[in-house]
Amino acid sequence: MSVTTVAAIVLAAGQGTRMRSRVPKVLHQLAGRTMIDHVLDTLAAAGVEPLVVVTGHAAEAVEVRLAGRVETARQEPQRGTADAVRIGLARVPASTRQVIVAMGDAPLVPGEIFTGLIAEQADGREIALLSARVTDPTGYGRILRGAAGEVTAIVEERDADAATRAIDEVNAGTYCFDAAWLRENVERAPASASGEHYLTDLVALAVTDGRRVAVLRAPRPELAMGINDRVGLAAAERVLRTEIAERHMRAGVSIVDPASTFIDATVQIEADARIEPFTILHGTTTVAADAVIGPHAQVSDSTIGARTSVWASVVESSSVAEDVQIGPYSHVRPGCQIGPRCRIGNFAELKKTSVGAGTQQHHFSYLGDAEVGAEVNIGAGAVTANFDGQTKHRTVIGDGAFIGVDTMLRAPVTVGPGARTGAGAVVTRDVPAGKTVVGMPARPIEIRRRSRDA
Amino acid sequence: MSVTTVAAIVLAAGQGTRMRSRVPKVLHQLAGRTMIDHVLDTLAAAGVEPLVVVTGHAAEAVEVRLAGRVETARQEPQRGTADAVRIGLARVPASTRQVIVAMGDAPLVPGEIFTGLIAEQADGREIALLSARVTDPTGYGRILRGAAGEVTAIVEERDADAATRAIDEVNAGTYCFDAAWLRENVERAPASASGEHYLTDLVALAVTDGRRVAVLRAPRPELAMGINDRVGLAAAERVLRTEIAERHMRAGVSIVDPASTFIDATVQIEADARIEPFTILHGTTTVAADAVIGPHAQVSDSTIGARTSVWASVVESSSVAEDVQIGPYSHVRPGCQIGPRCRIGNFAELKKTSVGAGTQQHHFSYLGDAEVGAEVNIGAGAVTANFDGQTKHRTVIGDGAFIGVDTMLRAPVTVGPGARTGAGAVVTRDVPAGKTVVGMPARPIEIRRRSRDA
Amino acid sequence: MSVTTVAAIVLAAGQGTRMRSRVPKVLHQLAGRTMIDHVLDTLAAAGVEPLVVVTGHAAEAVEVRLAGRVETARQEPQRGTADAVRIGLARVPASTRQVIVAMGDAPLVPGEIFTGLIAEQADGREIALLSARVTDPTGYGRILRGAAGEVTAIVEERDADAATRAIDEVNAGTYCFDAAWLRENVERAPASASGEHYLTDLVALAVTDGRRVAVLRAPRPELAMGINDRVGLAAAERVLRTEIAERHMRAGVSIVDPASTFIDATVQIEADARIEPFTILHGTTTVAADAVIGPHAQVSDSTIGARTSVWASVVESSSVAEDVQIGPYSHVRPGCQIGPRCRIGNFAELKKTSVGAGTQQHHFSYLGDAEVGAEVNIGAGAVTANFDGQTKHRTVIGDGAFIGVDTMLRAPVTVGPGARTGAGAVVTRDVPAGKTVVGMPARPIEIRRRSRDA
Repeated sequence: MSVTTVAAIVLAAGQGTRMRSRVPKVLHQLAGRTMIDHVLDTLAAAGVEPLVVVTGHAAEAVEVRLAGRVETARQEPQRGTADAVRIGLARVPASTRQVIVAMGDAPLVPGEIFTGLIAEQADGREIALLSARVTDPTGYGRILRGAAGEVTAIVEERDADAATRAIDEVNAGTYCFDAAWLRENVERAPASASGEHYLTDLVALAVTDGRRVAVLRAPRPELAMGINDRVGLAAAERVLRTEIAERHMRAGVSIVDPASTFIDATVQIEADARIEPFTILHGTTTVAADAVIGPHAQVSDSTIGARTSVWASVVESSSVAEDVQIGPYSHVRPGCQIGPRCRIGNFAELKKTSVGAGTQQHHFSYLGDAEVGAEVNIGAGAVTANFDGQTKHRTVIGDGAFIGVDTMLRAPVTVGPGARTGAGAVVTRDVPAGKTVVGMPARPIEIRRRSRDA
Repeated sequence: MSVTTVAAIVLAAGQGTRMRSRVPKVLHQLAGRTMIDHVLDTLAAAGVEPLVVVTGHAAEAVEVRLAGRVETARQEPQRGTADAVRIGLARVPASTRQVIVAMGDAPLVPGEIFTGLIAEQADGREIALLSARVTDPTGYGRILRGAAGEVTAIVEERDADAATRAIDEVNAGTYCFDAAWLRENVERAPASASGEHYLTDLVALAVTDGRRVAVLRAPRPELAMGINDRVGLAAAERVLRTEIAERHMRAGVSIVDPASTFIDATVQIEADARIEPFTILHGTTTVAADAVIGPHAQVSDSTIGARTSVWASVVESSSVAEDVQIGPYSHVRPGCQIGPRCRIGNFAELKKTSVGAGTQQHHFSYLGDAEVGAEVNIGAGAVTANFDGQTKHRTVIGDGAFIGVDTMLRAPVTVGPGARTGAGAVVTRDVPAGKTVVGMPARPIEIRRRSRDA
Repeated sequence: MSVTTVAAIVLAAGQGTRMRSRVPKVLHQLAGRTMIDHVLDTLAAAGVEPLVVVTGHAAEAVEVRLAGRVETARQEPQRGTADAVRIGLARVPASTRQVIVAMGDAPLVPGEIFTGLIAEQADGREIALLSARVTDPTGYGRILRGAAGEVTAIVEERDADAATRAIDEVNAGTYCFDAAWLRENVERAPASASGEHYLTDLVALAVTDGRRVAVLRAPRPELAMGINDRVGLAAAERVLRTEIAERHMRAGVSIVDPASTFIDATVQIEADARIEPFTILHGTTTVAADAVIGPHAQVSDSTIGARTSVWASVVESSSVAEDVQIGPYSHVRPGCQIGPRCRIGNFAELKKTSVGAGTQQHHFSYLGDAEVGAEVNIGAGAVTANFDGQTKHRTVIGDGAFIGVDTMLRAPVTVGPGARTGAGAVVTRDVPAGKTVVGMPARPIEIRRRSRDA
């Protein structure tokens, strides 16, 4: 098949009342992306193009979100899935030979299902549909099969007798149609009592007509079905997370307890890194070999170097070099660069701060808007007073400086290389290299001594 | 049925040796309530009244716990469940037509089971009993059924041949009896070798006698059975937690990972709130719409406003308004009221403190017994020295005040609106509105400068 | 059987490429011990001795790790499992009558399996092998059985027809051999296309020869099979953890949620202790009765006293007495002894510090290299300045002392019993018993007042 001849119509018009949410159903989040993003990304990766999303309920919110990415067609009023497909078809190019119909609320359907349906349909059938064997088939169209396994009917719940209701193979709602057949027949779906036209009825009709309908049964039913409520959403999240964790483990990452580890699909981890329990890795985070993240760590959009450990701490939008130890209970806020062999924590906070190699910030303390050199020692209770009530100011600390306990650095201020500050010093002026200052306000120690003696 | 004609006898006399605990078995906790509380609450909610609890092992501890709530009757010595029912019956009013016998260690039996047994028994039977199909029936009485599904015998383990032992439908130990029949027959239960009289034997006798015994099979066996050890207790806890989480999700709450989220039955959450992993919500906590709790948060007996986030922090017995950001690593201790749009954290501690709208306490610091106005800035390291070794004193900080880094506020003390304190200031006297104080002890900045110049 | 006549050869020569690791497969960690440690410990506990480990891939790393513990024999080049057994046999004493062959990557095989195989083999068979029924038998040798259940063949994947491939009982790879038969036959295993000699082929040969081969089917297949990749490693970790948790629960420990609780096999916990979710207990930790550990706690190599709680905190290599409350967000670093009834936290840090009974360190603060008496109060922000840039110095604080907020104790320094320090004091000299010092540097309060008045 040539990919240019397959289009997809993604149905996103339904109300999703069982989500009980102000947020439109297809915009609910799943492992960091919206449901419909998952569907569109999978279709695009499978080479299906163009994609047309049919909106309806809360159409504007969905359209705003998809603007510039795919074409949308609005169904107004919402009169059923067959009607939605009819509206979407109007945006499908005339040259299209096959039309996928996908559900915007079935984010787990894998690419192979779509390509499988395309292949099945291309093999001389008008329709290829996805089926699944489910534990509770209530509400779904049952697939009836003949002796040779061929589809003989699709019976909706309302028309099913007890025997048919007991069938657990159901129509999952995802299809590949012959485009020509679909164009000719889409309006034939009968109106329901409430005046809606359902795609399932159209397919049932095709079977009754003796059309060739292939059925592809989903190997994993939990991936095939749409999400109806937040219980289903949570279950889908777990499926996705398990897949992500297993992918990393097969690639050589140790994950002590995949069930209590949350890794976004976008995170990269090198082999022989180790992820401990109760850990969350978000966004564009990358973790190098032999790093240990967790337990109880959260890292988002950050780079973690080789052999570095992040223990019971939060690291956000920062870059941490190799052989660093962070935590427990430290907070590296956005915009930090931490050099190799640093020790950060416990109860240490950094924000928009660069730290040179081998620097130690062992205890409760705050470095904000600072440029800290190598081999610096930051004492317990030290603070960069970077905010004067109006603006933020920078602090510069030179290599090898020793910032005493409880030292306040009133920014803007510079502490030279090798300089020292006394316990409780309030540093309001620059400290020259190698000098020691003490007191409040801090003055060179020899001056303080002299004035005391005087 | 009229509720006034149904009583329940709850059996709580057993020793529960497999719990290996000094705590009486029925007083073990499950999702924040004791086992027997669950049973009594369910019966009461099902309209069953009066409730009589038969105590025995560790009777006093159980009786103390139930005092003023339900009637108790002590079984002394403990001579089996039939004997316990006999003792309980003495407290059941003569007008009672139906008697539920419930196990104090089966906290998951749902109300519908009790009402179902009541209805089954009322339908012309002497007894309705609860059965369950279990994976390992060892030790339980097996239910034998005839061709039409009717109960033909209940065979105890000791009397069972191999074929009978293979039956996996067992007597779960929960019943509804015709009160008159029970009164007449309760003493007929034969004595075992150890001199005990078992209810199961009484029921087996009824079957042998040709009495009409209805069996209600539990749809979910894990809810029907008693808890024998702490492995069973942990499993029951998970069942309860899953139910609570699913109830919230169906009502519109997003719970990213129900398996790592612990929500007490008493917690209320509005639709479109979001609970992240590793989070615990206790007691009377309420969470408003669009709030985000977690990851790694613990909130107990507190009110959380709309759009507020509590991230990797602990909030206890406090009230937090809307649009507040707390965390990571903050601790709001009991007795705080936090106004809208505040920023609390990281490493911030508050205790018995009210905070006005828009106030910022961004870093490690401690506010205790304080009344803080709106739009106040609390610097890193700031502390209310509220304790002098004997008593606690209050601190008052006016609107728009700027508390510099490392400022010590020696309570009782008041900092006026718009006042400022310098880095490291030790404030021992009230600061007038709009004034700036510096130094240790803190004095108005103009006086400090003068004295320094002098 | 006499234990001196049973030896074991443990196969640890394989490459384990699917682990995708620089670490040799059998050295991967599982619940705190390497895979091969688990195997050797289980064999030793079952009384099997001597143990010979056959190394090959990454032989040196494995041999270094096992040095002084068991004998190793190197297979070079690696030419299959039968060849490895041949090499191992050379180290087995001539007096040995039975030879266990165990897999170094099957750490969950329980001791009863080994003793069961020994007994089966001793019962007149040349070989006893372990089988398991698995969900996916692909790649394993299938066990074919006759009408009486006797083994008629073991068919490797490459030789299996479709019907045989469908058999789900497989050769798990663990054996007990008659030592004499093994010595005579070990070289008969045919070479594969790649020149390797497989033990499975040797066993298949024995069956074909009409030798008596007993099969012991593993009651829990998940314990029988080798670990192939990190997905399997994580699954094994969960099996082990579940077993440990259930053992504690059956012994009377409350574990609220075993799935989110990590307890090393070496940890000891008394009955009626309670472990809350998201908690990790490591190493030689012991927990006394009625202690509450967690939620969100980590304790390693520490002693926790009765009724003590460790809440959302880290305790390392320390000893904590009874009735202590720690947390949330505290860090007890190695080398601390904390007396009864102390209150530690939030945001408190201690290192190499002893603390007497009833002392309070309620807020952010740091005690390092300190000896703190009983009934001491440590104010918020207090710090022992124990490091001068070169060495660590000690701080001594007497009973009943009151260390004011933000007090810096420049070690070495002693604060006498009942002494007090003022807010923000920088204590550079010893404080006599009962005295109060204030200021920076701290001086007796009467002197400060005099100089201020002057």
